[in-house]
Amino acid sequence: MVGGGRGAFIGAVHRIAAALDQQIELVGGAFSSDAERSRASGADFFLPPQRCYGTFQEMIRAEAQLPADQRMDFVAIVTPNHMHFPPAQMALQHGFHVLSDKPATLNLAEAKKLSQLVAKTGLLYGLTHNYTGYPLVKEARALVRAGKLGKIRKVVVEYPQGWLATRLEASGNKQAAWRVDPKRSGAGGCVGDIGTHAENLAEYITGLKIKELAADATTFVAGRLLDDDINVLLRFAGGAKGVLHASQISVGEENNLNIRVYGETGGLEWHQKEPNTLLVKWPDRPAEIYRTASGYLGAAAKSATRTPGAHPEGYLEAFANIYRNFAEHIRAVQEGRKLAPDDPALDYPKIADGVRGMEFINAVVKSSAKNARWTKLE
Amino acid sequence: MVGGGRGAFIGAVHRIAAALDQQIELVGGAFSSDAERSRASGADFFLPPQRCYGTFQEMIRAEAQLPADQRMDFVAIVTPNHMHFPPAQMALQHGFHVLSDKPATLNLAEAKKLSQLVAKTGLLYGLTHNYTGYPLVKEARALVRAGKLGKIRKVVVEYPQGWLATRLEASGNKQAAWRVDPKRSGAGGCVGDIGTHAENLAEYITGLKIKELAADATTFVAGRLLDDDINVLLRFAGGAKGVLHASQISVGEENNLNIRVYGETGGLEWHQKEPNTLLVKWPDRPAEIYRTASGYLGAAAKSATRTPGAHPEGYLEAFANIYRNFAEHIRAVQEGRKLAPDDPALDYPKIADGVRGMEFINAVVKSSAKNARWTKLE
Amino acid sequence: MVGGGRGAFIGAVHRIAAALDQQIELVGGAFSSDAERSRASGADFFLPPQRCYGTFQEMIRAEAQLPADQRMDFVAIVTPNHMHFPPAQMALQHGFHVLSDKPATLNLAEAKKLSQLVAKTGLLYGLTHNYTGYPLVKEARALVRAGKLGKIRKVVVEYPQGWLATRLEASGNKQAAWRVDPKRSGAGGCVGDIGTHAENLAEYITGLKIKELAADATTFVAGRLLDDDINVLLRFAGGAKGVLHASQISVGEENNLNIRVYGETGGLEWHQKEPNTLLVKWPDRPAEIYRTASGYLGAAAKSATRTPGAHPEGYLEAFANIYRNFAEHIRAVQEGRKLAPDDPALDYPKIADGVRGMEFINAVVKSSAKNARWTKLE
Amino acid sequence: MVGGGRGAFIGAVHRIAAALDQQIELVGGAFSSDAERSRASGADFFLPPQRCYGTFQEMIRAEAQLPADQRMDFVAIVTPNHMHFPPAQMALQHGFHVLSDKPATLNLAEAKKLSQLVAKTGLLYGLTHNYTGYPLVKEARALVRAGKLGKIRKVVVEYPQGWLATRLEASGNKQAAWRVDPKRSGAGGCVGDIGTHAENLAEYITGLKIKELAADATTFVAGRLLDDDINVLLRFAGGAKGVLHASQISVGEENNLNIRVYGETGGLEWHQKEPNTLLVKWPDRPAEIYRTASGYLGAAAKSATRTPGAHPEGYLEAFANIYRNFAEHIRAVQEGRKLAPDDPALDYPKIADGVRGMEFINAVVKSSAKNARWTKLE
Repeated sequence: MVGGGRGAFIGAVHRIAAALDQQIELVGGAFSSDAERSRASGADFFLPPQRCYGTFQEMIRAEAQLPADQRMDFVAIVTPNHMHFPPAQMALQHGFHVLSDKPATLNLAEAKKLSQLVAKTGLLYGLTHNYTGYPLVKEARALVRAGKLGKIRKVVVEYPQGWLATRLEASGNKQAAWRVDPKRSGAGGCVGDIGTHAENLAEYITGLKIKELAADATTFVAGRLLDDDINVLLRFAGGAKGVLHASQISVGEENNLNIRVYGETGGLEWHQKEPNTLLVKWPDRPAEIYRTASGYLGAAAKSATRTPGAHPEGYLEAFANIYRNFAEHIRAVQEGRKLAPDDPALDYPKIADGVRGMEFINAVVKSSAKNARWTKLE
Repeated sequence: MVGGGRGAFIGAVHRIAAALDQQIELVGGAFSSDAERSRASGADFFLPPQRCYGTFQEMIRAEAQLPADQRMDFVAIVTPNHMHFPPAQMALQHGFHVLSDKPATLNLAEAKKLSQLVAKTGLLYGLTHNYTGYPLVKEARALVRAGKLGKIRKVVVEYPQGWLATRLEASGNKQAAWRVDPKRSGAGGCVGDIGTHAENLAEYITGLKIKELAADATTFVAGRLLDDDINVLLRFAGGAKGVLHASQISVGEENNLNIRVYGETGGLEWHQKEPNTLLVKWPDRPAEIYRTASGYLGAAAKSATRTPGAHPEGYLEAFANIYRNFAEHIRAVQEGRKLAPDDPALDYPKIADGVRGMEFINAVVKSSAKNARWTKLE
Repeated sequence: MVGGGRGAFIGAVHRIAAALDQQIELVGGAFSSDAERSRASGADFFLPPQRCYGTFQEMIRAEAQLPADQRMDFVAIVTPNHMHFPPAQMALQHGFHVLSDKPATLNLAEAKKLSQLVAKTGLLYGLTHNYTGYPLVKEARALVRAGKLGKIRKVVVEYPQGWLATRLEASGNKQAAWRVDPKRSGAGGCVGDIGTHAENLAEYITGLKIKELAADATTFVAGRLLDDDINVLLRFAGGAKGVLHASQISVGEENNLNIRVYGETGGLEWHQKEPNTLLVKWPDRPAEIYRTASGYLGAAAKSATRTPGAHPEGYLEAFANIYRNFAEHIRAVQEGRKLAPDDPALDYPKIADGVRGMEFINAVVKSSAKNARWTKLE
Repeated sequence: MVGGGRGAFIGAVHRIAAALDQQIELVGGAFSSDAERSRASGADFFLPPQRCYGTFQEMIRAEAQLPADQRMDFVAIVTPNHMHFPPAQMALQHGFHVLSDKPATLNLAEAKKLSQLVAKTGLLYGLTHNYTGYPLVKEARALVRAGKLGKIRKVVVEYPQGWLATRLEASGNKQAAWRVDPKRSGAGGCVGDIGTHAENLAEYITGLKIKELAADATTFVAGRLLDDDINVLLRFAGGAKGVLHASQISVGEENNLNIRVYGETGGLEWHQKEPNTLLVKWPDRPAEIYRTASGYLGAAAKSATRTPGAHPEGYLEAFANIYRNFAEHIRAVQEGRKLAPDDPALDYPKIADGVRGMEFINAVVKSSAKNARWTKLE
């Protein structure tokens, strides 16, 4: 693991996600750029000091020299955005699979480079667009794929938060500080941090690609350098239209990721806040309430659930689904097994999603700079 | 009443709204352009045949000649859009107050003419943007006005419907037929029918004016001449941003008018589907559930409720609030009473809202024709 | 109308319910036991002074002497409970149909007497158990009747309120005062005021009769003479079991009337707070969301709705459905038309429901006095 | 671990709960009464064959002989009810702490014996009444304790399920089979399986003890020996009243554990289905929506949450909270640390809860056998 030492947020989430299914063991890490802190953090996780490294470079080099059966199987990257690409690149170059927090990189150029490297090395690369790990998000995708909604016409996806409604970064909040800093966060503020989740969710469920967009990004909090609110018109390949809006200044909102999709013959609605409910809507009969872990769900949703009865699954389970599938894929590679194209183990976000996310951020930033001019995604 | 004969929809709603508080009596009407049908409809309402007219012209002329204490007090117009202006104009010219279904007219030019006529005659003109009649919509406005949310930053307003997802107008549906016909509906399809409700609601609650917008309007159903879906970026005077989307092809949606407003220090959320609940959100304490008819509500919300306990109020009661206030205003005028500026009787949509609605429709149509170019409202 | 003068609550509700569909005209009343107040109230309703009577006796005698085409068609009784029977009895004896607020009478003996009188006179008697007027309550009943849920096994019905959690009656609240006074309210407090609504709703939807019950009634507020909270075990004829609880001390609850019914093959759930939604549940497929005014609903639900689209209906509309059906039934009687047994006009609570309600109150009071001993309803 | 081999349900839940916080390592187990199957299951969990035992007796004896730093720290028991007591007893007798699935034992006599043994050995005993692990359940308890609701008057707790609405046990369903078998499940069916969860939740949140109850238990499915539905009137020490109902034949219901508590000055409402929301109700101001992981929550709720932002927590996290606290308590014991009485590590269900649960089951069964006669809990 790179990053995620004491005081970090997403590192702990990654560790829980990895541990939950008992298929992955944390064997070492460069948890902090401060070697002392890295070791102290590692001790919290019951790791031997010699595998708590001071830098990711040190870690990758040292692990690469361990015998194959002791060496780490993959590297999880849980640092701020600007530190995604360097360790990912180096890990791949040393033969390690990579599971990275999103966005894949600091900018599009890096993402493309990474994509080429992944292709070249043939190694696996996973990206924690964790919301696609929810069972009912998978069911939503399956319903669209099966044509249950007919041809998709309209998508409304939104991700309002309120935690940056004031200048939190000025008060010593570490999470806020790097997110509003272009050097560490990249060209997008809200768009990069959560807008990409919305974009990824919309494309995952519908299977459609955003062709072009018109974006109005705003920085509401004075003194902030990056956007903290975006409103975007979407046009998808194939003719569907959509709206995407995300915000970090929507006071009182949590991680209110929501999506509605309408096709010619049906619609669906999902809310991250109540992730175990999926509404499926019909023109001439009652809307249906799909619930996680129900017998009538499809294979993808079922394989993403751990309990046969009806017990609420949450954020960590969804996150763990990314880890579980990634681990399963690694195992298949290690064992020389070829997976069928629809094997659930293949269902995790990959470098292509990472490139896509960077294209989205770029397009939003560009469009907004030109007063919401229509801008194509590459 | 003009329009609203047998087989009509909104006419019956108007009659119930008028009757509900027992302050208004239907005394006559031109219920249909077919004189026979008008008389038959009038008989359904227990009206004497001599006050069931074959045309609105006939009605207005005849009523104007009745003694003051027998003559109708105002004209309610419940026809399709193209038939709003002519009877409104003539009624005003003959000294009658007017309460019209929305939009005020077929186009902006008519709306302006009407506005001048209202100003000139000094008569009252009401417009049934009925959603502003809900008690909790009034509470929302009061909260914003009182500064409870701080300066407004973001507005998300939406009105998805699904009933026109197929070519219903080809199947003999009268309601669908005139709404998709530019001659009877005007330049806007979805934008005119329901988009204006969303616009009116947003401006009513926030007290802010939409300064400019960028709209992507679509006609999804082949063969249809007017838009059946709109996605709009909004910029308000004063710096707030927003998103407005409305649709008649969102399969499975009813009249799902929803609004969220976020200020610097608070947020609020209201759904027409469950109109007796208003969520009020705070940065650092639990969100609150405001409920219709609660003791803690403000004067405007309270005066818009009929039952002291907690009984669900619905669409018809909200609609009736427009009628009640309008009737109360007429009575004040008749009795020569001067109302205080914050008298609830003055709280109903007026010709200015009608002009505003036409400007909105125009701007959306124009912007969309220019590929979502930013377009100012006049 | 008997009762419902200035300051009353339910009288206004009755008047709105009567006016809403424009089929009923208020022609006179004894609105208060104070003749002056009665006249003043009548003036509020635009009534001529000569039909604003000082007592119900005066009213009934005077109206009975009017020519048939001027005389009132029926008497609406909207007084506190102890004043339900006397005017009902006298009205029937003078040939008038009666529509009474619930409960039918002060005690079971009166209810039986009234029942005999209704039978003997052949006149119509309606009772405003208004919650059965909701469209989706009618749909629920229709689903049970059609066997969609299979044989009914379990019923959970509840009606928590919080308004009497403190000794409101001591603070001059008129509504509270008579409700907690055995002389005006009868033997039951909470059980009579709202418990009977729950009982009526359960029997209406399921079509089953409560056979016996075990009740634990409590008076939580010191100094109060009647129960303000009841918990009741139910056994229905045919083997279904159930729970009924009602409360006036459940702080923060409005009129939270809720019901869940489970049969061998399906279940349903309805909440008065969101009356336009009915959940229908299945063992092996997604639960369904039935919504008021949808095309897939049955005839009873449809005939109880006024707007073809999807507009929230509320408490007043449900109440008005009782009035409308009652008026329609009177009209049929006046015109000598025989109604089919499933004619919607016959779907309103009648004297049998009134007797049933009094039996329920009696049984709860008796059972509770014997420490929740099982007690049969007569 | 005892039980939980291939094909089991709750064993996997326990393993995830134990693994989630990375503080507990599964080191061995008797996963099945079939030694071969036990070993195969252990291999699934990456365990060495020598620590995959054929019987719990074998396991306890062998582990007890290992050096202290290799030996297991505690035994988790995840077998059907009749196999809870024997391994718990033997583990305690051999010096191991015990964490058991609920109910603690097959009957009250065993529970008392176990309680004495726990007291005598001074070892720790935890019981997975997992619903008390939810952050907002802890917040609810804290609110009651802090007197925010005033003196508690009424409790409504319910746990409807629908999965046993048909005779599933006859179709080879293993989970159903042992639950309806008195030899393996004990004297209670529904009451033991889920009724005790409801009882535990009510006593946990309110801090009140059920003094006596009147129960109507039913077996709806023909051929079944144990109850599959219970309706219970509750009386708490101190005067509060309540209703508890649970069901396994409520078609379409999942694990719908719900609770409402009303005090003299406030009320609260929590639903397991949406466990991250707690409604707090007041007599004269808007109800409040408490959400998991919010800054305004108390210490207990906060310490039960893993993510600082607002990410839905689910069933597994709640379950893991029991494990985490239990492990933390063991660690404190091992390190000779004395915990403060309000240390979160002490907040897990213990043997007293187990005894309490058996008393509840006994009382329900006894009361029901005597036609719902009031029956005291010991």
